[in-house]
Amino acid sequence: MSSSVTYALQKHGHTLLKKILPTTSLLCRSYAERKPKTGILMLNMGGPENTDDVGFFLNNLFMDKDLIPLPAQSRLAPLIAKRRTPKIQEQYRKIGGGSPIRQWTETQGKGMVEILDRISPETAPHKFYVGFRYVRPLTEDAIDAMDVDGIERAVAFTQYPQYSCSTTGSSLNALYRYTTMKKGLPSTMVWSVIDRWPTHSGLVDAFADVIQKELDRFTPEQRDDVVILFSAHSLPMSVVNRGDPYPAEVGSTVNRVMEKLGHCNQYRLVWQSKVGPMPWLGPQTDAAIEGLAKNKRKNVLLVPIAFTSDHIETLHELDLEYAEELGAKHKMNIRRASAMNDNPIFIEAQANLVKDHLASNIACSKQLLLRCPLCVNGTCGKTKAFFASQQELLDEMKSQEKARAVSSA
Amino acid sequence: MSSSVTYALQKHGHTLLKKILPTTSLLCRSYAERKPKTGILMLNMGGPENTDDVGFFLNNLFMDKDLIPLPAQSRLAPLIAKRRTPKIQEQYRKIGGGSPIRQWTETQGKGMVEILDRISPETAPHKFYVGFRYVRPLTEDAIDAMDVDGIERAVAFTQYPQYSCSTTGSSLNALYRYTTMKKGLPSTMVWSVIDRWPTHSGLVDAFADVIQKELDRFTPEQRDDVVILFSAHSLPMSVVNRGDPYPAEVGSTVNRVMEKLGHCNQYRLVWQSKVGPMPWLGPQTDAAIEGLAKNKRKNVLLVPIAFTSDHIETLHELDLEYAEELGAKHKMNIRRASAMNDNPIFIEAQANLVKDHLASNIACSKQLLLRCPLCVNGTCGKTKAFFASQQELLDEMKSQEKARAVSSA
Repeated sequence: MSSSVTYALQKHGHTLLKKILPTTSLLCRSYAERKPKTGILMLNMGGPENTDDVGFFLNNLFMDKDLIPLPAQSRLAPLIAKRRTPKIQEQYRKIGGGSPIRQWTETQGKGMVEILDRISPETAPHKFYVGFRYVRPLTEDAIDAMDVDGIERAVAFTQYPQYSCSTTGSSLNALYRYTTMKKGLPSTMVWSVIDRWPTHSGLVDAFADVIQKELDRFTPEQRDDVVILFSAHSLPMSVVNRGDPYPAEVGSTVNRVMEKLGHCNQYRLVWQSKVGPMPWLGPQTDAAIEGLAKNKRKNVLLVPIAFTSDHIETLHELDLEYAEELGAKHKMNIRRASAMNDNPIFIEAQANLVKDHLASNIACSKQLLLRCPLCVNGTCGKTKAFFASQQELLDEMKSQEKARAVSSA
Repeated sequence: MSSSVTYALQKHGHTLLKKILPTTSLLCRSYAERKPKTGILMLNMGGPENTDDVGFFLNNLFMDKDLIPLPAQSRLAPLIAKRRTPKIQEQYRKIGGGSPIRQWTETQGKGMVEILDRISPETAPHKFYVGFRYVRPLTEDAIDAMDVDGIERAVAFTQYPQYSCSTTGSSLNALYRYTTMKKGLPSTMVWSVIDRWPTHSGLVDAFADVIQKELDRFTPEQRDDVVILFSAHSLPMSVVNRGDPYPAEVGSTVNRVMEKLGHCNQYRLVWQSKVGPMPWLGPQTDAAIEGLAKNKRKNVLLVPIAFTSDHIETLHELDLEYAEELGAKHKMNIRRASAMNDNPIFIEAQANLVKDHLASNIACSKQLLLRCPLCVNGTCGKTKAFFASQQELLDEMKSQEKARAVSSA
């Protein structure tokens, strides 16, 4: 089905429902009369909940053409996933058997929705859905659940504060593909997207909060010496050189957080989790720690600046490989700031972000609609067109709402 | 002379002068009694004022170990400079025969000092000095002039808003080397440094001003389509991967400027002026324009985001090679935002920056004192130690000032 046909059907179906439902039954009447229910889809990559899920996770990851386009991907990806599974399973075993990302995302979702129902009654009741890219609940599962719940107004809320084509871009492409190519009745959901929030004041406050708390755990003498290493997941230079906005956006988060902290300590932005032989953006976090050791620095605070909950890259890479192992090797005192997890400042920021987004009635940021100058992924263009097309539906929804408000007054 | 001996001499000499001078003559009395005269050294790379200077400029540039460490540099650099001179001379011919950077820096300096004398009478009279890295007046010439003028309080003010070891770092290393190794009497100047100002509100206002003015030159229909390409001088990946703070700081400038502009247009940060076969940070500005052309974009606004006056990279590379030639090739409408040049908002920002810096009595930012994690340049460590050592002198200067104020009250 072409995407323009899908849009037409979607728009048509939506209007149809509005017209038919109020006259058919009391149930439908109450459905049509109440204010639109808002579904918030929290998008993230996800992680295996137990070691048995590692193979499924890695297979989905290496199958993701939006993340890693491979030659003969459908045959090669399962082979790479299978080869890497035992090593990654071992890492998950060391952090307690699985990724806590689902638990934290649900904690954040619950807290966010509670606040939203209070501060944004006109869009209540709100319900959150977790849509992971590589483990269940998958983005596709979440969209099905939203349809089953009869969500009219859907917000795709990326849980990556800084936009990369490899993360948010991949999730939005998955959403686009599933929404527009779904079998059966066309969805009646109207979508908008919170596609980036690198310098949202609440996010900055939350980062400053966790950093300050961890700085307070150094002795006063140590504290003056602490170098804050903001560590973000790196990208291949091939992605950076296409014009991926992520490095600049991460830089701007770091700048705001340090401003909020009154530039209390020295800092650098460094990049973790490089894999494979190709060049990635550096300096790498471990190389930076080794360099600081060489320069006789003794106190380091690692801050995961591009993820909002704990996962393998914080619990294994930062905590075990860097803070513990490199710390012991160089007799350094390396601590790590908490991930956002259940941080109340962070959860309130999420709620405020969604409230303001809903109030704006904007389908997506202007910036989302610009493809990377050297983009090679055709789906990105279609996904952007899909979100742009929602603006007309949002405007229509809003004017119907106003009309209802007038007629009931 | 070891740098610690120099510091001691400098401190000693300074104290000695304070003690001896008031009792020796009326002239000296007035010297000691008046408030410190403030010298502001405006640091930049500079450019050849005419085509005859191109060889001297290139020779100094390729001799700069802080910028490009080459094997057998003292023999290789003149050869490379000589080989490149005709091509670069031709570029300067096309932009009117020379770089306007000295003229603009002097315009900015005069304006800044006028405002400073008014808004910061306690540090007046102020005098600016131009210190270029690769052409006259060289950093060393400027320091001599400051000594001749009997400057007591010296501010090294980098004209690069975002810090890179290749730009500000190289200028500060030159300042350190000359100040501490100068023959003859030790200098009595006490130094502080404004080493970066990527998100200063006045700078952001000035960028927003020139961008808005240039956006207004597109027709309303064109304006909606305009992609703003913020273009900064690129860096070799070997420098980025050492932990040079420049890419993240440029990213934060872009973020603030777009926030100030209310995210009025789509934008990307791109990188210009790559030379040689080694990998540099991308996407390159020309490749980005070609990519936009492929994506059927017709209107582009180029913004030089990391230089504060016109020079070869704006007038030749952006205006002639990109706006004119690529514009014609792809039938695109490519404009370029003005450099800061004589922009009054910018000049006021410079003055406010220096005023606040002087009022803080801080020798340098904490951030300056952190060497890049993978730094390979020993001079950087010494330069940082030199600026750190000035804090004691600044504190002493301040308390003497207070004592004089009390005794004269």
